[in-house]
Amino acid sequence: MDRIPTTQIKEHIGQRVRVQGWLHALRRMGGVTFLVVRDGWGTVQAVSEDEAELAPLLAAGAGLETVLALEGTVTAEAQAPGGVELRQLAVAAITPVTEALPLPLHKRQLKASLPTLLDHAVVANRHPARRAVFRLAAEAMAGFRAVLGARGFSEIQTPKIVASATESGSNVFQLDYFGRPAYLAQSPQFYKQIMVGVFERVFEVGPVFRAEPHDTTRHVNEYVSLDVEFGFIENHFTVMALVREVIAGILSRLENNCAAELALLEARLPVTPAAIPHIHFAEAQELILQRHGVDVRGEPDLSPQDERWLGAWAQEQHGSDFLFVTGYPMVKRPFYTHPDPGRPGYSNSFDLLFRGVELITGGQRLHRYGDYLAALERAGYPTAPFESYLEAFRCGMPPHGGFAIGLERLLMQLLELPNLRLATLFPRDLSRVAP
Amino acid sequence: MDRIPTTQIKEHIGQRVRVQGWLHALRRMGGVTFLVVRDGWGTVQAVSEDEAELAPLLAAGAGLETVLALEGTVTAEAQAPGGVELRQLAVAAITPVTEALPLPLHKRQLKASLPTLLDHAVVANRHPARRAVFRLAAEAMAGFRAVLGARGFSEIQTPKIVASATESGSNVFQLDYFGRPAYLAQSPQFYKQIMVGVFERVFEVGPVFRAEPHDTTRHVNEYVSLDVEFGFIENHFTVMALVREVIAGILSRLENNCAAELALLEARLPVTPAAIPHIHFAEAQELILQRHGVDVRGEPDLSPQDERWLGAWAQEQHGSDFLFVTGYPMVKRPFYTHPDPGRPGYSNSFDLLFRGVELITGGQRLHRYGDYLAALERAGYPTAPFESYLEAFRCGMPPHGGFAIGLERLLMQLLELPNLRLATLFPRDLSRVAP
Repeated sequence: MDRIPTTQIKEHIGQRVRVQGWLHALRRMGGVTFLVVRDGWGTVQAVSEDEAELAPLLAAGAGLETVLALEGTVTAEAQAPGGVELRQLAVAAITPVTEALPLPLHKRQLKASLPTLLDHAVVANRHPARRAVFRLAAEAMAGFRAVLGARGFSEIQTPKIVASATESGSNVFQLDYFGRPAYLAQSPQFYKQIMVGVFERVFEVGPVFRAEPHDTTRHVNEYVSLDVEFGFIENHFTVMALVREVIAGILSRLENNCAAELALLEARLPVTPAAIPHIHFAEAQELILQRHGVDVRGEPDLSPQDERWLGAWAQEQHGSDFLFVTGYPMVKRPFYTHPDPGRPGYSNSFDLLFRGVELITGGQRLHRYGDYLAALERAGYPTAPFESYLEAFRCGMPPHGGFAIGLERLLMQLLELPNLRLATLFPRDLSRVAP
Repeated sequence: MDRIPTTQIKEHIGQRVRVQGWLHALRRMGGVTFLVVRDGWGTVQAVSEDEAELAPLLAAGAGLETVLALEGTVTAEAQAPGGVELRQLAVAAITPVTEALPLPLHKRQLKASLPTLLDHAVVANRHPARRAVFRLAAEAMAGFRAVLGARGFSEIQTPKIVASATESGSNVFQLDYFGRPAYLAQSPQFYKQIMVGVFERVFEVGPVFRAEPHDTTRHVNEYVSLDVEFGFIENHFTVMALVREVIAGILSRLENNCAAELALLEARLPVTPAAIPHIHFAEAQELILQRHGVDVRGEPDLSPQDERWLGAWAQEQHGSDFLFVTGYPMVKRPFYTHPDPGRPGYSNSFDLLFRGVELITGGQRLHRYGDYLAALERAGYPTAPFESYLEAFRCGMPPHGGFAIGLERLLMQLLELPNLRLATLFPRDLSRVAP
């Protein structure tokens, strides 16, 4: 008999089915034994009132996480999780597990300290509530690609070993490249801009590396960046319109494909407004003064408190979990940022706040060769390390812009996780480089 | 007027349209000027017999690769590339280019030495024949994901910074991780196996890093690996059946979505046989003795010449560009390889040869904890660096296997490119870490 995934069992009531998976839980109550089998997609409960049925398991001394095959008759049972259970069992151990697990997987909640959970992520990630996070990650990537693929974007893969630590100058990991120094890319920013000259519309899903010596709940040193860049834009508002489509596409994908995972995680997905409200940086500072009596005018950036205030305002005023703040001061943005032609000192850039926390950064970039030479000089950078980057602009680039979403940050905020590490399969931080 | 992509122009005969792109070519013949405009997807020819029409370009001193907007009337013209051209032009320069290009992009063939082409990849990749390769790369990734997504596989992103150089011991890049040594992952092998314990069926598309000091046409030091791993297999033949589906899915995606690119590159896509023929390693060596009088029996691996002979045999005997060679000797396979239970010394592994060259390697892996302990001891490895990997097996893993495809290798072989670097956007090799 061919196996079926546990998620399809409810379509086979009254029939014999075969499942394969892990012995997720085992509970004996008097003469009745309840088993829960977990496969790659879900779980199913099986019930036996006959010890002989379970002999192949018991003979192997099989404990929790034993890999097994199980045949049974699908029976509707309102008390059972999912409304069905398997009875009249025939079970076979495939890989018996006889040793104790490093942490208990069979409880509804995974009770373990963060260090234990991360030390044993290899096993902890099997827990349905952990696995659900990473299933959402996979679907978020798929939703991201679907929105962009439908709009003529090409996926690219750009090098992660780079010649110089150019973009921000510091916080890069250095490696030994055949006896010479090289670095790990902090972002695909330069390459994705260069590739606008090739494909016009590009995106990349890949790792980025930040040697930031911060030990916070919101930092890891390697993460997955969803990067977008495209040409022939009007200004940063063209980019923001695409951000809205991407967010809407990701959320609808999660809603359509991950109902079970979202329910398990008790996540409340936001609604994407038809148009995400936006406010200029300078007006946002005025608003904070009016509403909260705190004068942050003249500050070059928003504080976390400012962002929370603005998020609350967007919720009150527009009923929106999302808010674009536009026009951040040029002084706090990277050298390739396009200034606002009408308001010197402010930029054609934006942050997207989600529930009062920054989620996405983007904007229009410079596109004229002369502007790059001037910007580098203003920033005090030498031009030599930027030689190839500059070549793209010397050879003609259209007005363009883009944005980046940190995949783990997105999940953390959507799922209201207390630590970014919980949105990362195998996190890298100051003290952790394994598993 | 909204712009349309050049690839849609032929649907608008008789209408005014607006395109945006780069001035790809410019040719004056008497009083007639031919322009070719290239956008992110294709090119279109435009014709002017009126100098005044082109004044906005000429006034800007605009040369090739100038970014421009062009309106014109779509006219059927059998002589024009694609059968249509634009007339009655209105042109505007968006970003004028006034400097000479580092290499000529306007010829049908990109004539440049390999070093020139790689030094100026930022611009060279704009050439239609270069760009076509990378469009195929994007579509190959999409085809790969589509096949696996439809079969219940989850996409994962595993860390590229790892704690120890475990898999092959050498040829790894070392980096400075906050003052301690760490390494770049040579493959996601261990993580993808671990994730079989979570999702059963996983795949990853991501960079891998090999510090191999080889300067050949078939090596680069960073490439994109398409990795697959899945559980509850019978043996390596289950894996080979999936390889066939993946290859078929990628090829049909390329055929359906990349007709223009394939024509431009004069590529001949292979047909995927309903069942790819297979031959055991030992029988392959016997066959070589019979057909070619060369006795390679006892050799632990196939030479490139052996592979070419076997490829020719598959073509003659089975009319197939593809051939699986199964059962490679255990001595030449990594420690996690599952042996053939019936033929000690041989393994449950395979290579897929394509036109007589190895394209994919895969097989069944060990899945029992005790087998891993024995295999590590046999290989003379300490167990400490494998602690987390071993934990997955101690906690129950099903029979599983998988394979990996080098994206650039796939493109090189499909397109019969003379050098792997030509299938890589920005290649990394012994002497090259930029652009």
